[in-house]
Amino acid sequence: MSQPPEPCLIFPCSLSASPMPRHPGCWKMLTVAMCVALLGCLQAQELRGHVSVILLGATGDLARKYLWRGLFQLYLDEAGKDYSFSFHGAALTSTKQGQAFIAKVLESLSCPEDVAPDRCSELKGQFQRLSAYRHLATREDYMALSKDIEAQVQRGGLREAGRIFYFSVPPFAYADIARNINSSCRPGPGAWLRVVLEKPFGHDHLSAQQLATELGGFFREEEMYRVDHYLGKQAVAQILPFRDQNRKALDGLWSRHHVERVEIIMKETVDAEGRTSFYEEYGVIRDVLQNHLTEVLTLVAMELPHNISSSESVLQHKLRAFRALRGLQKGSAVLGQYQAYSEQVRREQQKPDSFHSLTPTFAGVLVHMDNLRWEGVPFILMSGKALDERVGYARILFRNQAYCVQNDEHWVADQSRCLPRQIVFYIGHGELGSPAVLVSRNLFRPSLPPESWKELGARPGLRLFGRPLSDFYAYSPVREQDAYSVLISRIFHGRKDSFVTTENLLASWGFWTPLLDGLAHEVPRLYPGGAENGHLLDFEFGGARLCFSQQQPERLVPGPGPAPMPSGFQVLKARYRESPLISAWPEELIAKLADDIEATAVRAVRRFGAFHLALSGGSSPVPLFQQLATRHYGFPWAHTHLWLVDERCVPLWDPESNFQHLQTHLLQHIRVPYYNIHPMPVHLRQRLCAEEDQGAQTYASEISALVANSSFDLVLLGMGADGHTASLFPQSPSGLDGEQLVVLTESPSRPFQRMSLSLPLINRARKVAVLVMGRVKREITVLVSRVGHEPKKWPISGVLPTSGQLVWYMDYEAFLG
Amino acid sequence: MSQPPEPCLIFPCSLSASPMPRHPGCWKMLTVAMCVALLGCLQAQELRGHVSVILLGATGDLARKYLWRGLFQLYLDEAGKDYSFSFHGAALTSTKQGQAFIAKVLESLSCPEDVAPDRCSELKGQFQRLSAYRHLATREDYMALSKDIEAQVQRGGLREAGRIFYFSVPPFAYADIARNINSSCRPGPGAWLRVVLEKPFGHDHLSAQQLATELGGFFREEEMYRVDHYLGKQAVAQILPFRDQNRKALDGLWSRHHVERVEIIMKETVDAEGRTSFYEEYGVIRDVLQNHLTEVLTLVAMELPHNISSSESVLQHKLRAFRALRGLQKGSAVLGQYQAYSEQVRREQQKPDSFHSLTPTFAGVLVHMDNLRWEGVPFILMSGKALDERVGYARILFRNQAYCVQNDEHWVADQSRCLPRQIVFYIGHGELGSPAVLVSRNLFRPSLPPESWKELGARPGLRLFGRPLSDFYAYSPVREQDAYSVLISRIFHGRKDSFVTTENLLASWGFWTPLLDGLAHEVPRLYPGGAENGHLLDFEFGGARLCFSQQQPERLVPGPGPAPMPSGFQVLKARYRESPLISAWPEELIAKLADDIEATAVRAVRRFGAFHLALSGGSSPVPLFQQLATRHYGFPWAHTHLWLVDERCVPLWDPESNFQHLQTHLLQHIRVPYYNIHPMPVHLRQRLCAEEDQGAQTYASEISALVANSSFDLVLLGMGADGHTASLFPQSPSGLDGEQLVVLTESPSRPFQRMSLSLPLINRARKVAVLVMGRVKREITVLVSRVGHEPKKWPISGVLPTSGQLVWYMDYEAFLG
Repeated sequence: MSQPPEPCLIFPCSLSASPMPRHPGCWKMLTVAMCVALLGCLQAQELRGHVSVILLGATGDLARKYLWRGLFQLYLDEAGKDYSFSFHGAALTSTKQGQAFIAKVLESLSCPEDVAPDRCSELKGQFQRLSAYRHLATREDYMALSKDIEAQVQRGGLREAGRIFYFSVPPFAYADIARNINSSCRPGPGAWLRVVLEKPFGHDHLSAQQLATELGGFFREEEMYRVDHYLGKQAVAQILPFRDQNRKALDGLWSRHHVERVEIIMKETVDAEGRTSFYEEYGVIRDVLQNHLTEVLTLVAMELPHNISSSESVLQHKLRAFRALRGLQKGSAVLGQYQAYSEQVRREQQKPDSFHSLTPTFAGVLVHMDNLRWEGVPFILMSGKALDERVGYARILFRNQAYCVQNDEHWVADQSRCLPRQIVFYIGHGELGSPAVLVSRNLFRPSLPPESWKELGARPGLRLFGRPLSDFYAYSPVREQDAYSVLISRIFHGRKDSFVTTENLLASWGFWTPLLDGLAHEVPRLYPGGAENGHLLDFEFGGARLCFSQQQPERLVPGPGPAPMPSGFQVLKARYRESPLISAWPEELIAKLADDIEATAVRAVRRFGAFHLALSGGSSPVPLFQQLATRHYGFPWAHTHLWLVDERCVPLWDPESNFQHLQTHLLQHIRVPYYNIHPMPVHLRQRLCAEEDQGAQTYASEISALVANSSFDLVLLGMGADGHTASLFPQSPSGLDGEQLVVLTESPSRPFQRMSLSLPLINRARKVAVLVMGRVKREITVLVSRVGHEPKKWPISGVLPTSGQLVWYMDYEAFLG
Repeated sequence: MSQPPEPCLIFPCSLSASPMPRHPGCWKMLTVAMCVALLGCLQAQELRGHVSVILLGATGDLARKYLWRGLFQLYLDEAGKDYSFSFHGAALTSTKQGQAFIAKVLESLSCPEDVAPDRCSELKGQFQRLSAYRHLATREDYMALSKDIEAQVQRGGLREAGRIFYFSVPPFAYADIARNINSSCRPGPGAWLRVVLEKPFGHDHLSAQQLATELGGFFREEEMYRVDHYLGKQAVAQILPFRDQNRKALDGLWSRHHVERVEIIMKETVDAEGRTSFYEEYGVIRDVLQNHLTEVLTLVAMELPHNISSSESVLQHKLRAFRALRGLQKGSAVLGQYQAYSEQVRREQQKPDSFHSLTPTFAGVLVHMDNLRWEGVPFILMSGKALDERVGYARILFRNQAYCVQNDEHWVADQSRCLPRQIVFYIGHGELGSPAVLVSRNLFRPSLPPESWKELGARPGLRLFGRPLSDFYAYSPVREQDAYSVLISRIFHGRKDSFVTTENLLASWGFWTPLLDGLAHEVPRLYPGGAENGHLLDFEFGGARLCFSQQQPERLVPGPGPAPMPSGFQVLKARYRESPLISAWPEELIAKLADDIEATAVRAVRRFGAFHLALSGGSSPVPLFQQLATRHYGFPWAHTHLWLVDERCVPLWDPESNFQHLQTHLLQHIRVPYYNIHPMPVHLRQRLCAEEDQGAQTYASEISALVANSSFDLVLLGMGADGHTASLFPQSPSGLDGEQLVVLTESPSRPFQRMSLSLPLINRARKVAVLVMGRVKREITVLVSRVGHEPKKWPISGVLPTSGQLVWYMDYEAFLG
């Protein structure tokens, strides 16, 4: 403890900045207080903090290429400031080999341009002396390391500030290392532990969850730093600061009212040769979209926190952005595979000639966000190998909502609102060759921190995104920094928002896993690679679906069999109970039913000016609602009246209410005028389905008043395993016949009380569709196919429109078992 | 009446086409019938039809430039076919002068390229012989003309087929001429009368209606042919045939799902010099938009009739398109005036130096259609004088819904779906210099009739709409035809769909008149003219509003006063009736109020989990609704309950309903759960505000049940010029005090019956905001500032929250006058 005391500026400064006491008598007390404070300050500061960095997998590729350089940069940035350092390169290699490797790597480190050569070579010497290799395999090794660190700290008269363990090792090694660190190498109290993890973080939601749970057994959430190196790319790291510093200009622009589309793109020219054993397991979506592109997406789309320097606040807002992502479906993506890929896999993994890989090396995905800011704006995520150029960017393209009177030859970049208006976070490579932030001159002159971003000089002839560079305010970093250097600095400073938290990781897998599952057996389109791809991979969207712009061309090589052509629906037509039956796989069945409903709606609106649709509750119609909500833009919602077939006697906002399903999955996505929505009045005068409130009669007279002849244009029914339909159950005393249009009934299951349209009313409809899905319905389907008209026993058998049409929609499991 | 019998073609033809009688015994009868029919037919056919064309105003400008040429073209086309002709050039000029004039015009007629010179000069000689001048002023003149025609027909052994009167005279002369024709110059029975009228057809809806009524006293609707010469332009006349012949390709494209915008443009380089006496009366909207551009708009937007050769069907569909036009508002247009205009008017019309015209010479208008096909698609209509080029076109620009993977340098015109996709009906002039139909190669190869449209040859270097001509399939007419020649031929053939019917004319004026009225006192932006306009006239739209892209520049000349500058957020804080007052310009006031409401909402949701907001009707809150809907992404709508302060006793979907305002301007843009929306129950059991339906009581108990302590978090009120607030009017017997929470009241203006929250309920609110806007409120504002608590006289003076806060929001006009 013989170190000289360090200066302590902060506390006295804040004291001296406090206002003068008004009474001179206070001076004495104040002087005493200052002395005490100063003393405490001096005491605490006499021990300098020490940080140990342990690089696990120190002899690996990533370490060699980036991590040692990043650590050196950290040392350059921090040496001479508040901390001392030691760097431990650890691996399983023998000590001798490891030492030699590290010596070589350290020797090869070059100095950055902005540090004077003399100073740098001095610092490099210091860095080399502070860095050492050690063999780290057993628990004992870790205990020894911990002891050595403690001894070093003691020796140097230091205080241990923290330990950083950087996992640059394959995931299978994580558990052992984590266990050893946790049990035998944690720093003492008062010092922090930070473990840095590299992807892959699992393969899907389940495996990511398992990995997270496992790691969670060893480390606390705040100790874990999961690296997505894209977050260290300078242009990516600038997204939030840019949005923050240009709040005023962006405020009126950053929403669906102004943004036409967002493109988040990473194109590569290389292919997967030499890495197919990894790539076969992952493919482009897991390799790039689930992590890098999704991270960029959230930075662009999230609500901007008030204070972006609060990691916690940034992470919370990011998580909210995940929650707003609309679920992906099979149709949300197009997949490709460069032509040589399968052959490479066969060669590298000794597969037989008959082997054809289904792993995509190219994917385009259309993402939508269900929030007010972004509803309807297409976010296009795309990445691929063996493309025509290497480039990455996030591009926000604004709508053209201007008409320019002058002939376009005379348009001036900073004045014409008709020239493309875009903001691009140019991640790197491409024509520009460096990271950049580009803002069209007809938008606004952006503000960027001049110490780290400078305006790009003229580059005549260079065009980006269809426009000459001179159309943009263009900025590039004053000093180009490698992503790992950026991230290592942020780990050191504890900036958790530049890393992937467990919650965010699981949210991202939760988003991608259903798509990955859905696409597992999809055959990707083959492409030749490079410029020859031409327009083969171009894709386009209609509603929420993506498809390639060009028809599948002739096959390039005998590949894994033809991609199933969009052959329309694979739909079986038959008869059931003497009425038409349509059967298909669930997705196709729902699509067909939605199409039929839309066609019926359009016809009804054309003929009568309105479409009266009565919908059933239950879970079967949910995918139908989603389909109608997100795909059927031509649906005449403004002229559609929505009625309920049945309702549970609970308040409308109860999660059990049929109406609540309708609200969540349909109403909130479409625009039906308020007064065209007709929930059943099960909740009157704060009571549920009280006879004396006459809810059923009220609903009946509403129907009589609005629906011509009380004939709905379409009634959608389901069928229960007991043969019930609507809320008409076997042996129901009411609703199966008689005059009543709407009745109160009893269900055998909770909630018991129900309101339902009656069979006679249902049978007045112009069209009745019965949707039956799932294997659980198989038995009743067979049974009902054989019975006659016995509504008392099987209410569904009483559905027989007097003059309308009845159509059965059953998926294969319900119909064929 | 010694008229020869009429031709009879139809009867024998239809007879011969009829199925053979099954019984041979019928043959005899049939043969007799056929002989009789045939005989009648032969008799009729020996008399050739004769058509007389009377050109009124035969010595005028239009006649000299276009009409004589059109008549000659008609003769070239029809001579030697089924009819003989005579052409009567009529005017008020003396016979001698008129004869000389006409001889000169006829002599100057040139032959079209596609008629052999010999044949043409022969026909020209015939045409000259068939054409004569006659002085036509009095009724006697018309009687004489009629006699002469009859004599000529008799003499020639002809049958009179019809008479065409072409009115190329100023509108004030219409009535006399029409009366004379009707009384003294109608052809005999069996022959038709067609009168051709030239615009202007009135000055607004009323005058057009009067003119139509007047003409209707003389002519039947089917006798009138109103010319809009744009309908004779070849590219315009091709719109419907193009849509018809390319139905298959266009079917999937011609809707809001694919069309980004439609531009209908007529740019002129000339100015109004020499014509200001006419132009001052009309301006660009009446001169070009109301007629030419609107006609084009309807041809583009109308539903395509099954059979486009049916005039009646085309006209009906066109009329329906008019009905779908959303009403224009002041904010739907931007106006300009070229800088020299006022000086030209002063010079030509001897106005004093102080005179400044408000007549627009430039207008951009944003039109929307409220139908399923076009909802949300901007139709931009623009025309102006003294612009940078002369050109006219209708351009349909399709959305880019593709992502092109390849770098844009490699995009190929017929393969890339990312290059602009457009269809242009190029009316004429401009870079191309001729009429054309252009279709982007990445759309489809169009089908055009090869006998009249040919593919354009290459024109290297020529760019149109931002793309080289080679990007388009481009077609131009085989033979360029003047619009009047086209129309004269169509008059002759009775194609009424190329003309403006009375119904369509009135529909068009009905559409434009409210805008014209609204803009009557608007000061147009001055522009220098020609290329110097730069971006000065560029305009852009947000929602349904148009505005110039650039701020008003410094004034070019001392014009009629500056446009008010948007001066940032200038908010005045003061006190009014002992409560806080916030005053500002309208836009800032609304922004401030919206901010305050959002802040209150966020606080309420944080504290109580819900926000209960009661909103007033009337027009003042509409901009507030729009502001909340489009700017406040952070508003906690999902936890907001919306209540009505008052309602008119009309159905909720009535345009007069307060709820309907809320629906249109707020609800359809946001996501409030259905059951959080609380319209007033003014419409129960198909009755409006019947006491016995207890609507007010129902609303009161809904409030008591859901709103803690019946204290709304915020009540938004307005103030009427009579001091009323909510629907509580002076001297109201209920609602001003007492126990009732919700009351039925009577308004002094229609609709009389209202439902309203009572003052006692309003005063239980945590916060009450009163929004007062516009100069009309100035008087009551001053008055109410002075009165005490006198709710019987001025209900607004009774607003005084018991424990809540009252804030007044007044714009400067209401507060400062």
